[in-house]
Order: sequence, then structure tokens, then C-alpha cells
Amino acid sequence: MITSRLPRSASVWRPLLVPTIMLLTWDVGVTVAFQLHWFEFPGITIQYTLYGTAIALFLGFMVNAGYARWWEARTLWGSIVNHSRNVAREATTLLDPTVPNARRELGPDMVRAQIAYVHSLRTSLRQQDPPPEIDRYLSRDAAVRVKNASSGPTATLTHLGRLLAEARRRGMIDDFARVQVESTLSVLTDAQGGLERIKKTPLPVQYRLLPSFFARTFCIILPFAVYQDLQWWTPIGSGLVGMMFLLAVQVGKDLADPFSDDVHDVPMTAISRTIEIDLLEMIGADAPGPVNPVGQVLW
Amino acid sequence: MITSRLPRSASVWRPLLVPTIMLLTWDVGVTVAFQLHWFEFPGITIQYTLYGTAIALFLGFMVNAGYARWWEARTLWGSIVNHSRNVAREATTLLDPTVPNARRELGPDMVRAQIAYVHSLRTSLRQQDPPPEIDRYLSRDAAVRVKNASSGPTATLTHLGRLLAEARRRGMIDDFARVQVESTLSVLTDAQGGLERIKKTPLPVQYRLLPSFFARTFCIILPFAVYQDLQWWTPIGSGLVGMMFLLAVQVGKDLADPFSDDVHDVPMTAISRTIEIDLLEMIGADAPGPVNPVGQVLW
Amino acid sequence: MITSRLPRSASVWRPLLVPTIMLLTWDVGVTVAFQLHWFEFPGITIQYTLYGTAIALFLGFMVNAGYARWWEARTLWGSIVNHSRNVAREATTLLDPTVPNARRELGPDMVRAQIAYVHSLRTSLRQQDPPPEIDRYLSRDAAVRVKNASSGPTATLTHLGRLLAEARRRGMIDDFARVQVESTLSVLTDAQGGLERIKKTPLPVQYRLLPSFFARTFCIILPFAVYQDLQWWTPIGSGLVGMMFLLAVQVGKDLADPFSDDVHDVPMTAISRTIEIDLLEMIGADAPGPVNPVGQVLW
Amino acid sequence: MITSRLPRSASVWRPLLVPTIMLLTWDVGVTVAFQLHWFEFPGITIQYTLYGTAIALFLGFMVNAGYARWWEARTLWGSIVNHSRNVAREATTLLDPTVPNARRELGPDMVRAQIAYVHSLRTSLRQQDPPPEIDRYLSRDAAVRVKNASSGPTATLTHLGRLLAEARRRGMIDDFARVQVESTLSVLTDAQGGLERIKKTPLPVQYRLLPSFFARTFCIILPFAVYQDLQWWTPIGSGLVGMMFLLAVQVGKDLADPFSDDVHDVPMTAISRTIEIDLLEMIGADAPGPVNPVGQVLW
Amino acid sequence: MITSRLPRSASVWRPLLVPTIMLLTWDVGVTVAFQLHWFEFPGITIQYTLYGTAIALFLGFMVNAGYARWWEARTLWGSIVNHSRNVAREATTLLDPTVPNARRELGPDMVRAQIAYVHSLRTSLRQQDPPPEIDRYLSRDAAVRVKNASSGPTATLTHLGRLLAEARRRGMIDDFARVQVESTLSVLTDAQGGLERIKKTPLPVQYRLLPSFFARTFCIILPFAVYQDLQWWTPIGSGLVGMMFLLAVQVGKDLADPFSDDVHDVPMTAISRTIEIDLLEMIGADAPGPVNPVGQVLW
Repeated sequence: MITSRLPRSASVWRPLLVPTIMLLTWDVGVTVAFQLHWFEFPGITIQYTLYGTAIALFLGFMVNAGYARWWEARTLWGSIVNHSRNVAREATTLLDPTVPNARRELGPDMVRAQIAYVHSLRTSLRQQDPPPEIDRYLSRDAAVRVKNASSGPTATLTHLGRLLAEARRRGMIDDFARVQVESTLSVLTDAQGGLERIKKTPLPVQYRLLPSFFARTFCIILPFAVYQDLQWWTPIGSGLVGMMFLLAVQVGKDLADPFSDDVHDVPMTAISRTIEIDLLEMIGADAPGPVNPVGQVLW
Repeated sequence: MITSRLPRSASVWRPLLVPTIMLLTWDVGVTVAFQLHWFEFPGITIQYTLYGTAIALFLGFMVNAGYARWWEARTLWGSIVNHSRNVAREATTLLDPTVPNARRELGPDMVRAQIAYVHSLRTSLRQQDPPPEIDRYLSRDAAVRVKNASSGPTATLTHLGRLLAEARRRGMIDDFARVQVESTLSVLTDAQGGLERIKKTPLPVQYRLLPSFFARTFCIILPFAVYQDLQWWTPIGSGLVGMMFLLAVQVGKDLADPFSDDVHDVPMTAISRTIEIDLLEMIGADAPGPVNPVGQVLW
Repeated sequence: MITSRLPRSASVWRPLLVPTIMLLTWDVGVTVAFQLHWFEFPGITIQYTLYGTAIALFLGFMVNAGYARWWEARTLWGSIVNHSRNVAREATTLLDPTVPNARRELGPDMVRAQIAYVHSLRTSLRQQDPPPEIDRYLSRDAAVRVKNASSGPTATLTHLGRLLAEARRRGMIDDFARVQVESTLSVLTDAQGGLERIKKTPLPVQYRLLPSFFARTFCIILPFAVYQDLQWWTPIGSGLVGMMFLLAVQVGKDLADPFSDDVHDVPMTAISRTIEIDLLEMIGADAPGPVNPVGQVLW
Repeated sequence: MITSRLPRSASVWRPLLVPTIMLLTWDVGVTVAFQLHWFEFPGITIQYTLYGTAIALFLGFMVNAGYARWWEARTLWGSIVNHSRNVAREATTLLDPTVPNARRELGPDMVRAQIAYVHSLRTSLRQQDPPPEIDRYLSRDAAVRVKNASSGPTATLTHLGRLLAEARRRGMIDDFARVQVESTLSVLTDAQGGLERIKKTPLPVQYRLLPSFFARTFCIILPFAVYQDLQWWTPIGSGLVGMMFLLAVQVGKDLADPFSDDVHDVPMTAISRTIEIDLLEMIGADAPGPVNPVGQVLW
Repeated sequence: MITSRLPRSASVWRPLLVPTIMLLTWDVGVTVAFQLHWFEFPGITIQYTLYGTAIALFLGFMVNAGYARWWEARTLWGSIVNHSRNVAREATTLLDPTVPNARRELGPDMVRAQIAYVHSLRTSLRQQDPPPEIDRYLSRDAAVRVKNASSGPTATLTHLGRLLAEARRRGMIDDFARVQVESTLSVLTDAQGGLERIKKTPLPVQYRLLPSFFARTFCIILPFAVYQDLQWWTPIGSGLVGMMFLLAVQVGKDLADPFSDDVHDVPMTAISRTIEIDLLEMIGADAPGPVNPVGQVLW
């Protein structure tokens, strides 16, 4: 997520560089060709107004759908944050470490497993390798199991379930409280399912392909359409409008895939770290510092 | 669901082939007729701008409604995924196989019945024959009952309910846990009801018929409208805009019916297989491999 | 609900007949009057583009709101379907017919009362007389009470509540299960409340009146606007655009009132029958056949 | 709420009278001034098309937001209706009047308090004096407390809570059922909170002020824009379009404030009376007749 | 939140002053330059219609998203209001101050902590210092802890949890009621999480940057576009349309950040005070007066 009002990071502008240069080259080329009378062309002013309206329609669908996906992803991560805190609060307050058969570290183990869970979910969504936090916060056994599992987050959540079962077996938690923790875990499963749904189901191909195709076609015919009006100003007029449509397509694409490991991502690294800090504070452990924007981008 | 950025599969483009050829033939024909002065026609430039706006309005309704239906269908399948896992987790953790009267295979039987359920739901929505998974994962009796039932998924869910009742009768599950499983089953019923609602209630006929009719009419009058401006370029200009409107209609239709067994379907086969793999792993059974895209289409 | 792709039933097209004839008569009349030079008129081409945009805005509100009402109505009926099945499942599995004081027919009576409920809800929403299913599925006493009540569905639900109280009095159901049934009944009350809200609260008068008024005014001025461009083609050009706006108004009206007992209704008769069949099968009784479309309309 | 298809009540049309007259006077005045050649003016045809588009954008935001507020208000009142019935059903079925310490009138008192609640909520939202139903349905003590409270509905709900506490103290209700009633009361609190949110939070000032300001400015410049095209027809063409924009602003305003005690209100008086009738029937008391539309307006 | 129909407060208009002056200066300058024939320019009338449509598209996304954020923020605060009342009602009715081990002030302490919570949440969202209400309503110990915590609201809620644990330890509350209070606290956590999500996740940079950039570019080219039509009227025509687009951008920005401590904020100070008054009344303590609008702005 880009945090500054006017991002200066090169990574933001780079994807726009090639299309901009190509667009301007084309616009200038067509203008020069007209000026040198290489060919004649009738005016098509109204034609392209209609064309522009139709493209705006397509772009509207794409950008709206993209934004809805991005915001749903962010809302689901908000749910992960809330319920991670709930898991930790429940692990620290509902487990009774004073019963005869108790294992004192069981509560903190559950909190640490929850931290490993959010980091694992983050790397899983970005299709990265398992994070170092798996080793840091899980026992050696559990870490191996999680790293070998086809789905890291699901395996971590299963591990949490096992810790809960251990608490029940040791008599550290009553049935009522156990159901409460289980329902919290089930809300986490739901949120994870929603995030994976967004990750695995891209926008329909028609929404991805057509706006892009038509916007580019439009950029190609635009200088022909405005040359009679604008003469030497054609590259500016045509370039501005063309740029606008290409940008809208780019905005739709960036928002529609909020876990693609680029600058427009939902800032999952920062969110995971926030949860890590909060949860470590709750069990009185030392916490790392928060994630800061790198080049005005919060990852 | 088409998975590639630029699908090359013939099945994606075939439905567009006939309209494209007809559209271009018509556009070329009208242009030639004008050039040969077979008839004269006054300009109707502004007229068709208005007409285009009105059609855009209709198309907007249709495409938005179609996308909403497609995404609701996908979200409901996401709910099926989550709660299938919940059923399996509950069947493996809440049933106690150590009580005197226990049947050890009851838990795994419930997990297998849940697998049969999602496959049955998939074929039922696509109006196909009952899937082979019915025979593979259900007992012979249950499989016969499910295949004879008017609604396969409902019959499978009823069978799951009977297994749960058996668990209760054998004392393998307490009342509290039983209610928990039952509420999970009830969420599955809800999601199934939502999917059947989308299947059985097509878009209102006005949303299906009118955009298509007006878009086609528009394609017919378009070359007359732009000939005076574009002359020999008419087929290109008119064809591009016409193609755009026809494509938008097609997009709306494809999305509005997400279980029609074509390339734009929600990828139910892949989703069902994912559930199958996950659930078989949970009971330690061998799982088949995941479904891979066929010709860039994930079914 | 119209089920065919291209409805041929006269009832679909009849409401459109009179406006179409009036529209064409007017368009032809104005064209003839111009041709005979009965009067002159300056061009108003741009003027009516703006006018068309403003009307499209109004129509957009109306059609969107209408579709949202129609889909909400359909979704609420989907909830009625799901929870009718739940009532029946609970009545057959949670009631214990083996206790000393049991009445064996109590469970089936509850299922039959639920069938009477959905039929009663259907006729109530369409403002028809109480359906014959009241007499068929309720005891004589209950049928009389329901038919005399101001709200048939509410009275039927109250009757269901009485049967549940009887089950409790006879000791056929424990408190836990009773609460479960009661919460199902309360979801049914909610869905019924939502349906009655849609029925009793029409679209705001501004949404109903203004689009219709402006679309008609537009049709009246349209031939004056396009005559200079289209000459003898005026009736076709003007008629097509005018027809489009009138159709959009009609679509909005048809969708906004989904229980008005016309061809665009939510198919409540078919849905009620489906529930009836499912529930009768659950208690092993003979069921009538499903409702089939009549003249391509499913009621 | 206006119930007729074409309202004839003067109160509907009166707010539109002054703007209409002012608009027509201005349009006629400008036309006459042009005809008398008092001044010349260049054509601004395209300019105002753009202007109209921008205003349509603003109006679209306003009307959509207004409609969403109106429908949310209506839906929340639907929730009040449903849960008022639930309170009454629970008060009549869950309270046991046969225990030694019982007070027979406690159940009916709760039902009557619920009736007082909805009337109190209605007048509170319309910022009117406490309704006579407070005195009719509450004990003298409670009525005084409610009328003196800063929030009448909240005080009435608190009174209901006290009656419930009395029932518990007298042993007329068990803990399980008490929790059920309390959760119903809590849903009522939620719905009331939603209604007060809509009441206390008007549309943002930008949504209220700007569309109105720009629509009026547009009406002022419109005759200048269309005079060259329309000549003596200017007042009609300009008046129609101007009227349309002013009406859209009015529609947005009317819908955005659904409790302002005018003809476009959610019909809270009728809804409250419906609840009153239903609840009185449930305790076998005489009920007043329903509220009928006055001059085609249902209050 | 601005409460008057036509705000006169300078703070509302000041952010608009500089752009307005710059816009008019530019428009007048270009007009004068044209009149003095400093340069010639071809007409670009249709070009900028298209440009305007594209910008309207972008602005539409931005304003809609901004309004949705603002209304979600307001709705979440409505949830805070409702559940603050629930916490207070539960603290006063569910805690039993008559048990042997009771501390009479525990209930009122919980109510006061809830008041401190909402004020803490308000200042936290506005990134201000901890409010004086922390010291007024919390014990010295708790106040210090809350003021040192990284998140004040979370620390206050943790304190509330400790008071609840104390009540349980002293036997003042049974398990059933404790779960009820805990679920209320969990709803508050959810609402707080939603508010922080809106605070910490600004609109995507594309939504913030591009509409603003394109609207300004549009204002720069507008006078060139309309000069040929409007001549000396150019500054008025161009200024009006330009102002409209700049205002739309400003509206989007103001609404998108509802906790930025400016006049367009959700009125959190007033809402917090309302809760404070209500809750103090419930424990019979003296309450401060409500917050009144300052210069027609309710904070």
C-alpha cells in the first residue's frame, strides 16, 4: 500500500513507463504523418465519443469490481486482526495454569501459534516460502509439519486445535470456554476462506481482457480522430485522454489482485507485524518494531 | 473458469465467431452499397449517440446483475468449502471412538459422506448424472438412495444426519457437540439453497432479452450512421463499436448463469476436488491429485 | 416468472401493445405533418441529447431499485424454502413419539401445518382468497381460525407454535430442542416480515411517477428532434429509441412489484409446491406433481 | 408515504409550485429579451451538455444515497414490527401465570409496554410530543417517567426490562427464557439505534448543498444555451429539462430524511397502529381500526 | 459534521478559497490573452466532452467510495453507542452487589470505564492526546496504564475485562451472564477494529491522486476549449464547470477520511458525550451537558 500523497517510489511509476512512451510515440508519429500529408483521413469526431462512452462502461465495471475485491480483502484481514486478539485474550484468560495437571506454557504456546498463523497466511497468499516466524514461534515438530503441509495456514490452525485439545485433556479449560475458543477459530477459518477465494478466483477473463483491449484500441485510433481539431496539439490532447483510460485499466488490475506482492497490495506484512507486537505484549514477551514504509510503500 | 491471461482455447472464442462474421459481413455490405450509390441516406450522427447511451444503460444493468450473481455463486461455494472442513474437523474431534458401544468407522464415514455431498451438489447444479464419487464414498445402501432421490445433495445431507443420529444413539457424541454439528449442517443447507436459487431463477427475461435485442438492432443501423464520416473505413469503425456491445451482452449472459457447464462456470469440479483432497488427508486416506486446467479452462 | 428465452405468451406482450401503437401513430403522424409542410420547426438535436441523459439517470434509479426489490423478494423466498425444510426435519427428528404421553401424529401435523403456511403466505402476498391447502393440511378447527384471521400466515405460524407447545406439554421434546425449533420459526417470521415489507411499501411515488412521465414526454418531442436528420425514416429512428425508454420504465415497474399476480412475479406457486412435495416426501405421504410453466410462464 | 399512483393531494405538489413558477418566468423572460434583441449571445450548446453531465453525476450521488437511507429506515421499521411481535409472543407464552407468586397481568403489561414503545419511538423520530398511547398503555408511574425522560423510547424499553426483572423475581420465567426475551429487546435496541443514526446524521452538507446549487445555476443558464435552437419554443424545452433536474434534487431531499413529518415519510403512524392491533389481538383486547391514507398519503 | 443547511463558518469555505482564486485567475488570463490575439487556437469542443466524461468516471469512483467509508464509519460508531448502553445495562443488572464478597462500586466502575473507553477511542482515531476523561473515569492505576499503552482504547477494554474477572472472582456474576458481557465486549472490539481499519487504510493512491490530477488538468485546458463559443463569457462558463469538478474531488477527499479532525468528521465528540450522559444517568451520577455545534459544526 502506498502511503504518501504523491508517491515518488520508482516502483509505482515503472509499470506506467512503457505504455506512456509507446502512447506518446504513436501520437506524435500520427501527427507528423498527417502534417507531412502522408495520408488523408475523414473526421470521426462523433464516432469516437460513442466509442469512449462504451469503453467507460467497461472500465467502470472493472474498476468497481476491483475496488470491491480490494476492500473485501482488507476487511477480511481486519477480521483476522480482531480474532487473533480474541484468541490471545482467550488463551491467556480462559486457561487455568493452576490445575494439578497444567502445563504453564500452554497458553503462551497458543498465542505464539496464532502469531505463526498470521505470518503463514501472509506468505501463503503471496505464494512465498514459509516465513521464518514459523520456526521462531512454533515447536520444532509443529514447524516441520506446517512447512511440509500443502496449506501452511490450515496446518497451523490445526496445530492450534491440538493445543486446545491438550488444554482440555489436562483439565485446564472447561467445556463452555472451549466452545468459545473453537468458535473464534472457526471465524478465523471463515476469514481465511474468504481471502483464499479472492486469491484463487481472479476477475472473470472478460473483465480482465476486454477493457484492456478496447482501451488500447482506442488509444490507437484517437490521434486520427482529433487531428483535424487539434493539429500540432494532437499528441497532448490525445495523449492525455489515452493515458487516462490506460490508467483506469491499470487501477482496476492493481486493485483486483490485492495479494500479488506488488506495491498496491493490502499491507499484509505490516498487519501481521502489528498482530505479532500486540500478541507478544499480551504474554509479556519482547516484540520487534513495527514495519515502516519502504520508499513510501507499506508492504 | 478461464485461468490464462489471454485464453487460446477455441471454446472461448467459438461463441463469438458467428456474430463477428455476420457483423463484419453486414458492415462491409452496407459500405459497398453506399459506395456503389445503390441508395442515399441522410446523416444520423447524433441520433445514434443517444441510442448508444440508452443501450449502454441496459447493458450496464445486465452486466452488473450478472457479475453479482457470479460472485454470489463463488462466495456460496466458498462457504461450502469452509463448512465441509468444519464438518470433517468436528467428525474427527468431537466423536469419541473409545466408548463401549462405538463404531470406529463412523467418523470417517461422515467425512466420506461430506465428500460425496459436494460432488453430488456439483453435478446437481450442472444437471449432470450423479457422480462416481457417490459410489466411491457412500455405502451401497446410501448410494442407491441418493441416486434415486429427486435431489441428490439433499439426500446426501439427510444421510449425514442419520450418521449423526447413529453417533448419538451409540453415545459417541454429547448433546452439546451434536448441536454444533447440526448447526454446521444447517449452514451447508443454507449455502445449497442459495446456489439452487441462483440456478433456478435466471435473470428476469427483460434483462436477458432486451439488451441483446437492442444491441443487435444497433449493430444493424450503425454502418448507416457512420458511413458519411468514415467512408471506406466504415467496417472497421462500425465493427469495433458493434463488437463491443455484442461482447458486453455475451459477458452478461456468461456471468449470469455460473453453473451452465461452459467455460465461464464457477470452477466447481476443481473446488470439489480440493475439498476431497483436504478431507481425505484429515482421515489419513489416499487422495487423488488436484484438477488442472484443461486448455486453460478450470472446470 | 417467464422461463423461455423468447416468450411467445400473449400476456407478456399485451401490456406493450397499446403504448407501441400509440408511439408509432404519433411518430408517423408528426413525420407526415412535416412532409406536408403543415409547420416548420428548428432543429433541437443537442437539446434532446441532454434530455435523454437526464431521463436515463431517472430510469437507472428506477430499474436498479426495482431489480433489487425483485431479487430481495426471491432471496427471502429462498429463506422460506430452507427453513420450511428445517422445520420439517426438526419435527421428524427431534420429537420423540415413544414417550408414554405421546401423540404419534403430532410431528406429521407440524409438517402439514408448515405446508399450509407457505401456501397461505403465497395467497396472502398476492391478495387472493385463502388457498385450498388450508383445508387439506390443517385440522378443521385450525383451518377455520386461519381463514378468519386478518393475517393467514401469522395465524398458521401461531398454530404451529401451539403444536410445539403441545409437544412440550406431552414431554415429546426437551427444552434444548424446543428452543431450536422456536428459533427456526423466528427466522420464518423474519422472512415473512421482509416479504410483507416489500409488498406493502411500493417504490416511492417519485420513482414510480417521474420516469414514466418524462419518458412519455420524451417520446412526444422525439420526432420533432430527429425529423431534420431522418426525414421519412423518422418513425423508425424515433420509434426505436422511444420504445427503449418505455420498455425500461415497464421493466422497472414489473420488477418493483414482485407479488402482483402477473407474469413477472416471483414464481411463488411453483416454490410453494416444491416445498409441499419435499415435505410430504419427508413424512412418507403422497405428493402432487410439480407446477409446470403455463404458456412459458412459471407462476 | 404517498399511496396513489397519481397523487392529487395538494401537499405533494405545493413544494414544487414556487420553483416551477420561478423557472418558467425566467425562461419566458429570457426568451422575450432575446426576441426583442435586448442583447446578443453566442451559442454555448456543447458547453452545457458537459455541464449537464457533471450535474447528473452529482444528482446521481444524492438520489442514490437518499433512496438507500429511506429503504434502510423502512427495513429497520420492519425489524421493529417483527420483534415487537416476538416480544409479545414471548410475553404470552414464556411467562407462567400459575406459579404461587405470579401476577396475572404481568404478561399483558409487557405487551402493552411494547405498544407504548413503538408509538414513543414514532413521535421521538418525528420530534413530536409524547403520544397519548403512553398514558393509555403504561401505568401512571411509568408514563410519568417516560414522559420526563430525555429519550422516551429508551425509557420505555428500560420499563420493559423492569417488568422482565419482576417476572424473574416472582419466579414466572426461567433463566433460559429470560435470556431469549433479553436478546429480543437487544435487537430492538439495535434497530432503534439505526433509526436514530439516520435521524441524527443528515446527508453530508456537500451532498445536500451542491446538487441543489448547481441544478439552480443550470436552470439559469439553460435558456441562453437553447435559444438559438429553439427560438420561441425555449420556455418549453428549457423548462422541461430544468424541471427535471429540480425534481431530482427534490426527490433526493425527500427520501434522505424519512422522518421529517411530511408526505414522503416512512408511514410510521400506520406501522405503529398495525403493531398495536396485532399485539392487542394477541392478549384478547379490543383494538382500534387501522390507519387509512388521508388525501392519498399514509402517515 | 456541518449541521446547518447553508454553512457560514469560514472553516468550511477556506479550503476552497485558494483553488477558486487560482481557477478564476487562470480563466480570466486565458480569455484576455485570446482577446488580445496573443495566440490562436483551434476549437476542441468535442475533445473535451470526452475528457469530461472520463473524468466524471474517475470522480464517480472516488466520491462513491468516500461516501461508503463515511457512512460505514458512522454506522460503526452507532454500534459503539448501542453496545456501550448494553455494557452499562448489563453491568447494572447482571452484577449482584448483595453477595457476601461483593464490592458495591464494581458495577458503576465498569460503566465509568466504558465512558473512558469511548472518549479514548475518539482521541485515538483523531490522533490526539489521551482525553481528560481517562483521569476522570478511571482509577489512578488504570489511567496510568491506559495513557502509557500504545493503544489507549484496547488498554481500556482490557481494564474492563479485568473488572469483569474481578466480578467473577467475587461471585457477583454467574457464568451465563459473564459470557453475555464478554460477547458484548467482543462486538465493541469488532467495531473498534472496523474504525481503525478505515483510519489506517486510506483510499488507494490511485483513487486519491488521479481524480485530483485530471480534474486540475481539465481546469487548465477548459478555457481554451470554450473560448470560441463563449468569448468574454469564458471565465464564467469555464469557472463554473471547473469549480464543479474541483468540488467533487474535495467532497470525495473530505468524506473518505472521516476521522481527520476537520469539519467534515463524523461528530465523534458529540457522540461520545451522548454516551457519557446516557451512562452517567444510568448510574445516577451527574452528567455534563451535550455538545453543541460550534459555528454550525458539530465535532
